[in-house]
Amino acid sequence: MTATPVALTELIAALGGDLHGGSDTRISGIAPLDEADERSISFLANPRYQAQLGTTRAACVIVAPALADAACARGAAIVTPDPYLYFARLTQWWAALTHPATQPGVHASAVVSPEARLGQGVEIGPLAVIEAGAVIGDHARIGAHCVVEREAVVGDHTRLAPRVVLGYGCRIGARGIVHSGVVIGADGFGFAPSKSGYVKIEQLGAVSIGDDVEIGANTCIDRGALSDTVIEDGVKLDNLIQIAHNCHIGAHTAMAGCVGMAGSTTVGKYCTFGGAAMINGHITIADHVNVGPSTMIPRSLTEPGTYIGYYPMSRPAEWEKSAVIVRNLSAMRDKVRALEKTIKTLTNQEEK
Amino acid sequence: MTATPVALTELIAALGGDLHGGSDTRISGIAPLDEADERSISFLANPRYQAQLGTTRAACVIVAPALADAACARGAAIVTPDPYLYFARLTQWWAALTHPATQPGVHASAVVSPEARLGQGVEIGPLAVIEAGAVIGDHARIGAHCVVEREAVVGDHTRLAPRVVLGYGCRIGARGIVHSGVVIGADGFGFAPSKSGYVKIEQLGAVSIGDDVEIGANTCIDRGALSDTVIEDGVKLDNLIQIAHNCHIGAHTAMAGCVGMAGSTTVGKYCTFGGAAMINGHITIADHVNVGPSTMIPRSLTEPGTYIGYYPMSRPAEWEKSAVIVRNLSAMRDKVRALEKTIKTLTNQEEK
Amino acid sequence: MTATPVALTELIAALGGDLHGGSDTRISGIAPLDEADERSISFLANPRYQAQLGTTRAACVIVAPALADAACARGAAIVTPDPYLYFARLTQWWAALTHPATQPGVHASAVVSPEARLGQGVEIGPLAVIEAGAVIGDHARIGAHCVVEREAVVGDHTRLAPRVVLGYGCRIGARGIVHSGVVIGADGFGFAPSKSGYVKIEQLGAVSIGDDVEIGANTCIDRGALSDTVIEDGVKLDNLIQIAHNCHIGAHTAMAGCVGMAGSTTVGKYCTFGGAAMINGHITIADHVNVGPSTMIPRSLTEPGTYIGYYPMSRPAEWEKSAVIVRNLSAMRDKVRALEKTIKTLTNQEEK
Repeated sequence: MTATPVALTELIAALGGDLHGGSDTRISGIAPLDEADERSISFLANPRYQAQLGTTRAACVIVAPALADAACARGAAIVTPDPYLYFARLTQWWAALTHPATQPGVHASAVVSPEARLGQGVEIGPLAVIEAGAVIGDHARIGAHCVVEREAVVGDHTRLAPRVVLGYGCRIGARGIVHSGVVIGADGFGFAPSKSGYVKIEQLGAVSIGDDVEIGANTCIDRGALSDTVIEDGVKLDNLIQIAHNCHIGAHTAMAGCVGMAGSTTVGKYCTFGGAAMINGHITIADHVNVGPSTMIPRSLTEPGTYIGYYPMSRPAEWEKSAVIVRNLSAMRDKVRALEKTIKTLTNQEEK
Repeated sequence: MTATPVALTELIAALGGDLHGGSDTRISGIAPLDEADERSISFLANPRYQAQLGTTRAACVIVAPALADAACARGAAIVTPDPYLYFARLTQWWAALTHPATQPGVHASAVVSPEARLGQGVEIGPLAVIEAGAVIGDHARIGAHCVVEREAVVGDHTRLAPRVVLGYGCRIGARGIVHSGVVIGADGFGFAPSKSGYVKIEQLGAVSIGDDVEIGANTCIDRGALSDTVIEDGVKLDNLIQIAHNCHIGAHTAMAGCVGMAGSTTVGKYCTFGGAAMINGHITIADHVNVGPSTMIPRSLTEPGTYIGYYPMSRPAEWEKSAVIVRNLSAMRDKVRALEKTIKTLTNQEEK
Repeated sequence: MTATPVALTELIAALGGDLHGGSDTRISGIAPLDEADERSISFLANPRYQAQLGTTRAACVIVAPALADAACARGAAIVTPDPYLYFARLTQWWAALTHPATQPGVHASAVVSPEARLGQGVEIGPLAVIEAGAVIGDHARIGAHCVVEREAVVGDHTRLAPRVVLGYGCRIGARGIVHSGVVIGADGFGFAPSKSGYVKIEQLGAVSIGDDVEIGANTCIDRGALSDTVIEDGVKLDNLIQIAHNCHIGAHTAMAGCVGMAGSTTVGKYCTFGGAAMINGHITIADHVNVGPSTMIPRSLTEPGTYIGYYPMSRPAEWEKSAVIVRNLSAMRDKVRALEKTIKTLTNQEEK
């Protein structure tokens, strides 16, 4: 909610779209159709929810041309080819309106090496640590309690939320968003077995992240063993994701929360991964692959398309019965084969 | 262990219960039956462990009335209707006795905005950051390295362990405990696809958490897209849990470690979720649902009760055979159907 | 890459091995066979990659005696019984050469209690917090933003990366490495149910970690309820792992990312766990057990060897068909049994 309501005409001036009615209407917030009140703007992106047009109290609804008449029949409307994209842009405009602006400068409590290089209009939050050789791009924002280690690079307009670690020599491009608790550049998990236990393989690579990447809270991206772990432009990672050393994620791939990716795996561009999907190490996933939630991908996928594989839940009694049979499925298959054979013999005898 | 042993009579004065024998006994610690020594108090909550009554060296055992005679036959006993609950209260009393008390005051190294509002008896730890407009309730403890962003609210007697982020505008009620590494109020994972890649949907909601909530280490609770993510009173979340935007968790629901909850899902009251259970987005789970560990819940559950679904482990050779058959189960079903048909024909012929 | 190339003879002097040729060769980096250039040293540990010997541009290749001839035929080689172990030691030597040395001393911005005890040559990073009674061993490095709570103990030569929490009374031995975001000693997840909701069981134990342990980013190890959670010597934990209260992990066991271990479980020595493996509470796993990725271990394992159990992924249409059948497998089994019976009857009739 804003203190001062905003005129729809202002909104149109900023974001485009055709306004039908509502030239005097002012709004104070954005809300889903079923929660909107008469001071809210709402949107209808999925025709499945069209019935809500008849019941919503929203002051204005963003719709596609096909629904323009239905929307206008009930009140003000903004007509645009892609209402969901329009809504996304509206949220950005709204956030810019309501969030405090960047406050360029270095907080007095931050510990910034004189050998770090800060761009123009940079904001360094309280108690952040910027080590020698680090480079912070123009208009970047480094949140409270962040640690940007030596030789690490933050691109222009990138924003690190409070408490992010960007390890030594790691790089993130422009316009990135990194949420709290993210660790970029911890050591990959590599050891050589020996008689006296595991011997650490020092991880000598770094992490290289492209432009327009968003990384969710407490997600980890490990540095490479010899070469770098690579995240290409436009990748979106949700919270609590594990990206192991030397993985390579193609541009515009999105992963939901709790996904895990073992080491040295390459994922293509424009892929999506459902929550808690797990990806084996040393494999390659093609472009445009969509993986369902809680699905384990054990081997390379060369064909685009959807893959899924989680165990269906049921009531404990059913599950227990099924689980026992699943473990012995080959016994059942053998029985069926034996039956087929017996019947074949019987049938042949019949035919004689 | 305490420096000065505590008399059982003191303990009874504080916590109630009937003391049988042991009026002169002093104890120095709490231990399980099989680890207790003659200076320990122990408890027997599960009748399955009754045999341990005969072997434990504990100075005193907390038991239910049904086991009073057996316990008294071996030494001092505290008799109480619910020994496990008594034990829980005993641990609290013990912790109060042995842990350092709150030290009201703001550590000199903390960065507290003059526009933040601190209640009575508040403790702010070293290097904590409290932004403008934040409200810290009476007797709340904010650990070292915490970040409480602008307009966030911490309820009375709530304790943030070191290094918690409470995002702008997010609220937690009274008597809460939030463990280290928790991120409350990172952006939910929302994007509109466009030809030039994903366009961010700014997350304009917050997180609203009730009273008596405990949140485990490194757990993430994202802010809502338009309205708030809501955690009701008495909810207990373990470590490394992911709660996506606009989820709603009903009162007194408990989730074990590594659970993931996709966006816009509502979970009822008094539910329990085993470790690594995964819950799909945009569904509704009834009250009193219990979900097993490693179980994926893909759809709404309207009936209370237990649900489970993880793949049974086995030796690799068996697993590989079963896995191949599982993938082609419909082929096996078709064979069985064909056999049924053939046999029916055969049987009919016999009958003729 | 180093600023100054290093002579192979120097490397041999430090690490041993037989150098064949290359007495004048200097190298600037370590690289896999297929990425190496003429200034790189590489290694061949897996005979499967032997063909790459013919195409690599590496200045020198580390090989086992069996491949000495093949390697020498193409250029300089270091011959050693275990090339992978040699490679591991080489990375350590390289890291020591290229990483900044420890800088003993306490950063001016750190908050160190006068009642903490610091060993010789200790480095305390910016904004770290060391509480009263904490003990930091000789040559230990405490990174920026770490919190070492009261009475916690860090062993000699152990390194905490930036932003680690070591809870009160918890101990880690010598030569450990703890990565950013790790939380050691948050409360275990324990509650007694009561009519008015869950009652917290205060966690009165601590965490006890042996020597030579490495712990990955954002991993959590909870303190025990009454006695300690124990991690023995040489254990290696990857990122985002959950170790619940009172677990006990045997020496030299390794767990990949996203593994979860419920409470009071004992895992033996020399075990390995694939990514996202889940281990039930209150069970015991023998020594030398290897668990596959995404596998749930519900019960104790007394036999060493490999165990696996994840649902095989497939295309959605196949998966849906299979999933329905899996849920009703006992119905199919019953049909097969009925068929067997019918056929037995038929066969008997035939025989008459």
